[in-house]
Amino acid sequence: MVTEPTTLQVILEFIGVFVFGLTGGLVALRAHLDLFGIHVLAGVTALGGGIIRDLLLGATPPVGVSDWRLVATGLAAGLVVFALHDRIDDDRDAAGGKEVGERPPGVLRRLRAAGILTALVKVLDAVGLSVFAVAGALKAIQLDSPALTAIIVGGVTAVGGGMIRDVLAGQVPEVLQRELYAVPAVAGAALIVGLDAVGLLNPVTLWLCVALVFVTRMVAVALDLNMPRPRRP
Amino acid sequence: MVTEPTTLQVILEFIGVFVFGLTGGLVALRAHLDLFGIHVLAGVTALGGGIIRDLLLGATPPVGVSDWRLVATGLAAGLVVFALHDRIDDDRDAAGGKEVGERPPGVLRRLRAAGILTALVKVLDAVGLSVFAVAGALKAIQLDSPALTAIIVGGVTAVGGGMIRDVLAGQVPEVLQRELYAVPAVAGAALIVGLDAVGLLNPVTLWLCVALVFVTRMVAVALDLNMPRPRRP
Amino acid sequence: MVTEPTTLQVILEFIGVFVFGLTGGLVALRAHLDLFGIHVLAGVTALGGGIIRDLLLGATPPVGVSDWRLVATGLAAGLVVFALHDRIDDDRDAAGGKEVGERPPGVLRRLRAAGILTALVKVLDAVGLSVFAVAGALKAIQLDSPALTAIIVGGVTAVGGGMIRDVLAGQVPEVLQRELYAVPAVAGAALIVGLDAVGLLNPVTLWLCVALVFVTRMVAVALDLNMPRPRRP
Repeated sequence: MVTEPTTLQVILEFIGVFVFGLTGGLVALRAHLDLFGIHVLAGVTALGGGIIRDLLLGATPPVGVSDWRLVATGLAAGLVVFALHDRIDDDRDAAGGKEVGERPPGVLRRLRAAGILTALVKVLDAVGLSVFAVAGALKAIQLDSPALTAIIVGGVTAVGGGMIRDVLAGQVPEVLQRELYAVPAVAGAALIVGLDAVGLLNPVTLWLCVALVFVTRMVAVALDLNMPRPRRP
Repeated sequence: MVTEPTTLQVILEFIGVFVFGLTGGLVALRAHLDLFGIHVLAGVTALGGGIIRDLLLGATPPVGVSDWRLVATGLAAGLVVFALHDRIDDDRDAAGGKEVGERPPGVLRRLRAAGILTALVKVLDAVGLSVFAVAGALKAIQLDSPALTAIIVGGVTAVGGGMIRDVLAGQVPEVLQRELYAVPAVAGAALIVGLDAVGLLNPVTLWLCVALVFVTRMVAVALDLNMPRPRRP
Repeated sequence: MVTEPTTLQVILEFIGVFVFGLTGGLVALRAHLDLFGIHVLAGVTALGGGIIRDLLLGATPPVGVSDWRLVATGLAAGLVVFALHDRIDDDRDAAGGKEVGERPPGVLRRLRAAGILTALVKVLDAVGLSVFAVAGALKAIQLDSPALTAIIVGGVTAVGGGMIRDVLAGQVPEVLQRELYAVPAVAGAALIVGLDAVGLLNPVTLWLCVALVFVTRMVAVALDLNMPRPRRP
């Protein structure tokens, strides 16, 4: 049985919270929200999945509103987006061919121009996805939830925050429209539940699950895999 | 006092879950969601009302994430919509006068062309509405909730899933805009509470309530009744 | 330690519920919702923040679905908006220069034409904001929540209902876009938590907190203060 989260697990979870927070801040930026809106979107993207998880499991108050380290990490991501928003806009101008030229290209700008920042965000977002899915399923198991609940809760922990982010920004959630994003998370949660059922859940298999979700997601990114879609008329 | 749900009640509840799931899948189809999005919308439409009910009543984890028969029924509705989406589109072409002609008209198509499928969905949706409203109020009563809570929870069980469906699809919830849909549900829940208060709640009166909500809703459909609306300027 | 809410606190809370309900009804009116939609938006705006608060704190069923006085007050606001919607429209015509002239100007119309009604709603809305923020934090403290939870819950109680209102009406929440609205609420909640931590929370300091949030918000209205916003490209 898995008991205490390891140091590595904690580190990965904070990476996930921070990167999810970054995506929330970026969506807020594009929706022209103010400083408060940027922090709210950073916070709900980073912590919303876990908050729904804890509400479904009856674990109140949710860690997303009681663990100050998690909340601070999510809000810090919002602050970073706000602080750097000028350079992020610069970069979009560059991408659109409207090179302005007056401002000297900074490190951040050159990294983005080379596609390195975008790739980095994709990788770290996949880290968040894997860790959240596994941690969500694990928490449900530790609270003696039914197997089905643990699977659903794992998936919700991984993609719920991003869904709230998109709804608040006035958009149909990305995860419902394209890419192979949620399915690896749900599959990873199901694997955790299966391993627990046959008594094989231990730190090694746990990490294999995290790695499997991560690799699946990265393959989906690399090959631009999508879920089947109905043909548009 | 009502204790165990009868077989008929269980059957009607599954019909409700399935048909609500169908409406979720259809809305997802129109919003051009992918296979995952179709299943999520089918699931939240079918089970979302009951999930909010259970969260409000403190009954965690909600049956909508723990009873595999309910979840499987909701997801099956999504699968049916995805499997048949080609024929559903065909049918819309036909309705719009753009008869394509190459494809031989199937049974499904002919049923829809005759308006039979649409009518069937309306009837079964009314079954779901009635059963959900009564079952929601009943669960609140069984958990010793105040009368007001039971009435609100009955209404939320009946219309909450459809509201989440519409918000996720980027639309203002239908139920807030037109038709006489929620009011019969709330009235049915109130009737259940009233019968319980005067000690007259038994299987017979319970079924009378379900029938009353159903008939009221069908009359509203047949006569195209709407709630009063402010005059548009 | 603060124990029972005073009469004044109760009165202010009902004022807050009613005025929040009015804003919900007005948003519903502009979104062309029907009578049911107007009442739902009035109800969720008035009570939604408190419902999320109670769910986060595990205090089920939430008072927003169990205290009939609160629910009746919220719904009454919806009824008032519906009953007066003709005159409200009149007024907008007048503001737009399309003076119709046939209808004799009523008291309501003259008050609005003079900007008195708008100012009154702003003032009473600030009353609701202050009371909800302080009452939210207080309830969290009384349920032995961590300090961080009490601060977040205070803010959510104050602005959560308005956010649900806007999402249901198909809009990006106002509070995320402009004005200095949420920050005074969160600051007031934080002050309550701080006072409690140093043992200085008593009826006098409690009311000073309410007054401080109210005054800050009114100054923000008077000076048209906004949160910092990213420059639009």
